[in-house]
Amino acid sequence: MNVGVIGASGYVGGELLRLLIKHPRVDINLATSRRYAGEFVYRIHPNLRGWTKLKFMAFNPSKATDACDLLFIATPHGVSSTFMPEIIETGIRVIDLSADFRLKDPKAYIKWYGWEHSCPELLEKAVYGLPELHRDEIRRGQLIACPGCMAAAAILALAPIAKRGGIEKNRVIVDFKVGSSGGGAKPSLASHHPEHFGVIRPYKPVGHRHTAEIEQELSILSGEKFSVAMSAHAVNIVRGILATCHLFLTEQISVIDVWRIYRQFYGDEPFIRLVREMKGIYRYPDPKVVVGSNYCDIGFELDMDYSRLVLLSALDNLMKGAAGTAVQDMNIIFGWDEKEGLWDLGLHPI
Amino acid sequence: MNVGVIGASGYVGGELLRLLIKHPRVDINLATSRRYAGEFVYRIHPNLRGWTKLKFMAFNPSKATDACDLLFIATPHGVSSTFMPEIIETGIRVIDLSADFRLKDPKAYIKWYGWEHSCPELLEKAVYGLPELHRDEIRRGQLIACPGCMAAAAILALAPIAKRGGIEKNRVIVDFKVGSSGGGAKPSLASHHPEHFGVIRPYKPVGHRHTAEIEQELSILSGEKFSVAMSAHAVNIVRGILATCHLFLTEQISVIDVWRIYRQFYGDEPFIRLVREMKGIYRYPDPKVVVGSNYCDIGFELDMDYSRLVLLSALDNLMKGAAGTAVQDMNIIFGWDEKEGLWDLGLHPI
Amino acid sequence: MNVGVIGASGYVGGELLRLLIKHPRVDINLATSRRYAGEFVYRIHPNLRGWTKLKFMAFNPSKATDACDLLFIATPHGVSSTFMPEIIETGIRVIDLSADFRLKDPKAYIKWYGWEHSCPELLEKAVYGLPELHRDEIRRGQLIACPGCMAAAAILALAPIAKRGGIEKNRVIVDFKVGSSGGGAKPSLASHHPEHFGVIRPYKPVGHRHTAEIEQELSILSGEKFSVAMSAHAVNIVRGILATCHLFLTEQISVIDVWRIYRQFYGDEPFIRLVREMKGIYRYPDPKVVVGSNYCDIGFELDMDYSRLVLLSALDNLMKGAAGTAVQDMNIIFGWDEKEGLWDLGLHPI
Amino acid sequence: MNVGVIGASGYVGGELLRLLIKHPRVDINLATSRRYAGEFVYRIHPNLRGWTKLKFMAFNPSKATDACDLLFIATPHGVSSTFMPEIIETGIRVIDLSADFRLKDPKAYIKWYGWEHSCPELLEKAVYGLPELHRDEIRRGQLIACPGCMAAAAILALAPIAKRGGIEKNRVIVDFKVGSSGGGAKPSLASHHPEHFGVIRPYKPVGHRHTAEIEQELSILSGEKFSVAMSAHAVNIVRGILATCHLFLTEQISVIDVWRIYRQFYGDEPFIRLVREMKGIYRYPDPKVVVGSNYCDIGFELDMDYSRLVLLSALDNLMKGAAGTAVQDMNIIFGWDEKEGLWDLGLHPI
Repeated sequence: MNVGVIGASGYVGGELLRLLIKHPRVDINLATSRRYAGEFVYRIHPNLRGWTKLKFMAFNPSKATDACDLLFIATPHGVSSTFMPEIIETGIRVIDLSADFRLKDPKAYIKWYGWEHSCPELLEKAVYGLPELHRDEIRRGQLIACPGCMAAAAILALAPIAKRGGIEKNRVIVDFKVGSSGGGAKPSLASHHPEHFGVIRPYKPVGHRHTAEIEQELSILSGEKFSVAMSAHAVNIVRGILATCHLFLTEQISVIDVWRIYRQFYGDEPFIRLVREMKGIYRYPDPKVVVGSNYCDIGFELDMDYSRLVLLSALDNLMKGAAGTAVQDMNIIFGWDEKEGLWDLGLHPI
Repeated sequence: MNVGVIGASGYVGGELLRLLIKHPRVDINLATSRRYAGEFVYRIHPNLRGWTKLKFMAFNPSKATDACDLLFIATPHGVSSTFMPEIIETGIRVIDLSADFRLKDPKAYIKWYGWEHSCPELLEKAVYGLPELHRDEIRRGQLIACPGCMAAAAILALAPIAKRGGIEKNRVIVDFKVGSSGGGAKPSLASHHPEHFGVIRPYKPVGHRHTAEIEQELSILSGEKFSVAMSAHAVNIVRGILATCHLFLTEQISVIDVWRIYRQFYGDEPFIRLVREMKGIYRYPDPKVVVGSNYCDIGFELDMDYSRLVLLSALDNLMKGAAGTAVQDMNIIFGWDEKEGLWDLGLHPI
Repeated sequence: MNVGVIGASGYVGGELLRLLIKHPRVDINLATSRRYAGEFVYRIHPNLRGWTKLKFMAFNPSKATDACDLLFIATPHGVSSTFMPEIIETGIRVIDLSADFRLKDPKAYIKWYGWEHSCPELLEKAVYGLPELHRDEIRRGQLIACPGCMAAAAILALAPIAKRGGIEKNRVIVDFKVGSSGGGAKPSLASHHPEHFGVIRPYKPVGHRHTAEIEQELSILSGEKFSVAMSAHAVNIVRGILATCHLFLTEQISVIDVWRIYRQFYGDEPFIRLVREMKGIYRYPDPKVVVGSNYCDIGFELDMDYSRLVLLSALDNLMKGAAGTAVQDMNIIFGWDEKEGLWDLGLHPI
Repeated sequence: MNVGVIGASGYVGGELLRLLIKHPRVDINLATSRRYAGEFVYRIHPNLRGWTKLKFMAFNPSKATDACDLLFIATPHGVSSTFMPEIIETGIRVIDLSADFRLKDPKAYIKWYGWEHSCPELLEKAVYGLPELHRDEIRRGQLIACPGCMAAAAILALAPIAKRGGIEKNRVIVDFKVGSSGGGAKPSLASHHPEHFGVIRPYKPVGHRHTAEIEQELSILSGEKFSVAMSAHAVNIVRGILATCHLFLTEQISVIDVWRIYRQFYGDEPFIRLVREMKGIYRYPDPKVVVGSNYCDIGFELDMDYSRLVLLSALDNLMKGAAGTAVQDMNIIFGWDEKEGLWDLGLHPI
């Protein structure tokens, strides 16, 4: 099976290449980059040295669809919607990791992204590519819109309780701590090592764009408007997200109840681990433990004094938060084992 | 004026020594450590090399009170209450940086610390040593109980709004991100560099002890029970705390209103800076900027969609969160300029 | 094939477990730890959560040899020599990752390790387990002594030039920069995160123990006494070693010559990459790029003004510096593809 | 006394502002930046918030010389030589922190910097501004050329032994490990946090420009050509340099001898500390301990087996490696206490 990566010079593109190179069932026919066209991909992604002779090419839609059976798109937000109709028309399967097709409501793009969507008719067609929620639609879908990294962390932490209820749906807070790779491969003053090292920087205390997709997905599960108030902080790591979700309970609930809700919801999902230990130093999810793996670790604690449920989720923003989920979607689409090319542990210590 | 530091080999003790060595009005007569008695203090606190020939001594209460006009106590929690009555009897001024005299309610020690207080009669006498709230009592007090580092960050962020009201007092969440020095100088597996580097570790998602003092102080200001649901996360830095406070508003409030409330409350407090910029990369408080200084930077954002007020405070846990406030208290006690020995900027970049 | 790991609770032991769990041809029958006997291994190695139900057991030599076809030993230095004769007698294959059988000269243990070797007769029998130098002996060997992590980095950087000559053999300097995981899993003040974070600590400017094995191996290649003056520095990362080797040339040599020497020596070694780029930001070896992989990246630069050759090597101390090489040795012993279970890329960025 | 800072928006400029704001004897009349003209300086240097209302201005030489008694220049290399003659003519004292006037030999600028010097006649007039070597000339000088940060570390480590002799003068190696702030305030891919975090990057294994000034100064002391072969590595910290100097002895020398040589050379230099402890975890110089201070810590070890002397020096590249030395030079020029405005300890832990 031949696949291509459009926008392959960024961090998500590089992670896709890493996974696809190792994937036993696909060949990478195409890796595009406007900026680095003609350059060896290992020059930009130094971990690929010795693993591929591929060079970046400029993107040409018709050539791309000719050469490939499936396209991964990892361009910046606002780009893929400019060429998607042309591509989709050819019938090719597309997994888009940008935000352009995640939201169902065209008006939400004006509110959250500041631009009018150029092909709103495709929004309906697009599938929100989180396997744990939309496996069947992914299998049948032509256009898969992969979740945002922070959205994936929040939705996976909250989905079971959003569906089950028993919490104040307009008092949900998600406090994020994220690594620097989530900001992309383009240098800026904010990402300059002397300025970013050692920060606990509340870079988006309110109004983060991922709110839109989180609320969209959780409202579906909840059956009514489900609000999520986000705050995002940058911390001194490269990979990883921790989402700390604070919820207020409207009814009595026990630790065993929460376990049961989460176990039932996730069953034997291959990439969800429930983590809550009574001893040791890794009693709750910690991004440190999932770096390089496709896991989303989920844990929780009950704060009886305050009727509060604290849900915690940790994932690698480039894996389960982006490229890992995209490859999982591809495996679903082609009917392969969902773990193919993804079945790996994290490193410890790291 | 002669001062002594009891429990001087820990990080708070070391920071006290650093500040007192530079302080123009005091001499350090005494630095005690059970473990390192006989050792030069600069061996343990390498930044003091060349600044003092002082050696650690074993602690002897009567010698300590004889030699000093004021004692700083930086022993582990549960220690100072064992010898405090003997010391207080001599009339000496004491600034205790442990938790032993922060709480007014003796029963709270059983609930939060797990031990019965041995001299509850002193709890009433003790003053909670946060200058911004209790300046006059500190001036007159004999026994000052310095705030916990996370408590200081939360109380300073919340005090003005707790006093003013207009928020849901039982829906307040404070999500903390803290550096490793807050865990003290004693090595453990959790603090082992390979295990602690790169973490976002939710080490205390519920039930943190500082809850008690935060609620005590804010309830006084609020005039009624003020609840604070804490969650504490360890991140990959050494010094610094960021407190992200999430509050739900019960009435309409504007950015200008919040500015006014905070400006009025803090007036010209020397160590409070209000930080909220429309541009640049340090638009909100960030511990990176206050490391080594005695500042508590406070900022905020309004999330109109969710009637949410996000308050942010950043401080250096060893300075404004411990030794800096203790020295500020000493300055108040002796009627000196409050900034004496503390008037310094942070370093940038660091 | 059944294998066991003796001393499985340390970092090298944990990395062995990670690799062996993924290895398609072996089952782990045994993981021993005195300290954690009875505990699930994933409690200590949190990345293994969900991958094994194995528990640590106490070590019993006869049970171990009965249960396994090959034993990996990752105990602290000085331990394996106490039980090795008993084990070796059974004919079992052993790969020892401690220092106990690396040196040929029994007297070297007194000089460098401070203890007399208890079974010097086995030193002759033992094979120094660096595949790039001793592949054939490893295949036939019963007792393989895996190289130290810093020794591996230095030997791989220097072997080709040591063999070829043309440098001052008593003026070789190797300046190491190493991550904290090299110090092992046991906490200490030196490894306490507040004390270790941000260091550039010259913890062993002279007299490092690995000198002995480096000189032993390079002297063999060189055909005469080859001296290496080491200095070791701890830096603010967890995994990785960079060895900077400074050599003075005794004859004219060109960049092309060095390339040729190294290409000829290493041929198509699967885990050696020669890295020297004229552009980009990863022009030379950097441990950041090899974390989690079994590569040793080697690069160089010529300093014509000073007749100096600078050789650089980077590896992951737990992989090519320990467990990765051990598994490579096992693959050689059993005649499997040498890359089996090891054929993986690094992550980027990380 | 009125001073100005030309090129005040970089890290060295910011550090100068920090020191000058605290300095009791000067007022800052001028801080120039082409890029940020009109902007408050605290927007770029967030640690200065609340300490100054100063705004950046565009640079105008005649206005600058009118307004100030002394000018600090912290522009990029190659800039100050374009306007220096015009400024010097007015008789104003100038402390230049760029490389433009550090070298005596005009041809060296072509070799090491790649441009022809536009006012070579001023090179002779300029004083190399390292107080420990040129205190008297600094006092009388009009144009002071402050040392490069790595040069300062190397020269201070090597000066006493270069003067004394007994080492192979053409076999001196200095292996540097440097923090990211040394690369300046301008973002690039190499300094992007995801790319720079966790590196041990040999960014300049040979041919570093500071070689020229190091050899210039040490050759003067040595009385003959003194060669220094440099290699520079970037590590995962922001502030700090460690220079590891490897020298081969030509005569027997003892630890006591080395102590004596260094003590005699440095006498009671206020900012030099000799660090060599037999116990503890900070036995040798470590940049972690000097961050924020003006110290250069110097230590050593003898490697008898190899006739090697290892000299170690640690300093804060923005302090003793730049702005701290510049302020020390100013104090000398004006006859003030040399420690004025600089007499501070480092922070620990940090």
